[in-house]
Amino acid sequence: MGLIMGLDPGLVVTGYGILDVTDDGRRVVAYGCVRTPAGSSQPARLEMLYRQLTAILERYHPEEVAVEQLFINRNASTAVSVGQARGVALLAAVQSGARIVEYTPLQVKLGITGFGRAEKKQVQYMVRAILGLPEMPRPDDVADALAVAICHCHYRAGGGL
Amino acid sequence: MGLIMGLDPGLVVTGYGILDVTDDGRRVVAYGCVRTPAGSSQPARLEMLYRQLTAILERYHPEEVAVEQLFINRNASTAVSVGQARGVALLAAVQSGARIVEYTPLQVKLGITGFGRAEKKQVQYMVRAILGLPEMPRPDDVADALAVAICHCHYRAGGGL
Repeated sequence: MGLIMGLDPGLVVTGYGILDVTDDGRRVVAYGCVRTPAGSSQPARLEMLYRQLTAILERYHPEEVAVEQLFINRNASTAVSVGQARGVALLAAVQSGARIVEYTPLQVKLGITGFGRAEKKQVQYMVRAILGLPEMPRPDDVADALAVAICHCHYRAGGGL
Repeated sequence: MGLIMGLDPGLVVTGYGILDVTDDGRRVVAYGCVRTPAGSSQPARLEMLYRQLTAILERYHPEEVAVEQLFINRNASTAVSVGQARGVALLAAVQSGARIVEYTPLQVKLGITGFGRAEKKQVQYMVRAILGLPEMPRPDDVADALAVAICHCHYRAGGGL
């Protein structure tokens, strides 16, 4: 079935989690995050994010990359900054040949906890429990990336929502 | 002094304008826009934008790329979409080796019309007049890209704001 990558893009931290989907379940292959230094210019940080993420994509070559759709209620400048990082991350993913699948925050929460209004902590708790991780993946962006990857496994196995 | 590119990035249309700055003024080298088809997925459109823009950057190799800072009052999903396209455009620009310079909308209006509350039409009129273009550059995104390029020439010649 091949590898699945969950991705939670941001300019400061981009979380990723890679799962191997097999007939008898799924296995964690790798997880972590890409950071860019606050002191650099925004274009330079986008370039670093792109380069680091491309290296990870080339190393694992996931068949599918799952990302959460972005709904931002905060100020629009945050939306622009996150959008820029997300654009670069999606570009790296599509260039690697992966199929990109998007899920709403509701779908991710439902897929992980069975409850659409689950709190962030509950999602993280379930990510750790489902994958049998020795400890909570940190920072939050990594847990979120693993959550959307698990979510994609569930929906794919179940034939969609 | 080398070439300057003004850029107005968007997922649907990205306008660009390239000026040659010489000792005795500036010359329009090229202007136009890159479009991506509405029927394609967002990641695919980002990839097309990146590829087309990279080809233009490789062709003209501008020393500096000027973009307008983004201030969005509309809904945040627009901000995310524009942000994604902007991220990919900035990535292409920085990868080409160009220095990226950002201007606020106020700086662009002041630089072109001398009036910070100038209407869009007035900016477009002045772009055409300043560059001696035979007709109004269309669509708006192209005029906006030329406006930020002119603005950059002015501020650079004047030693900054």
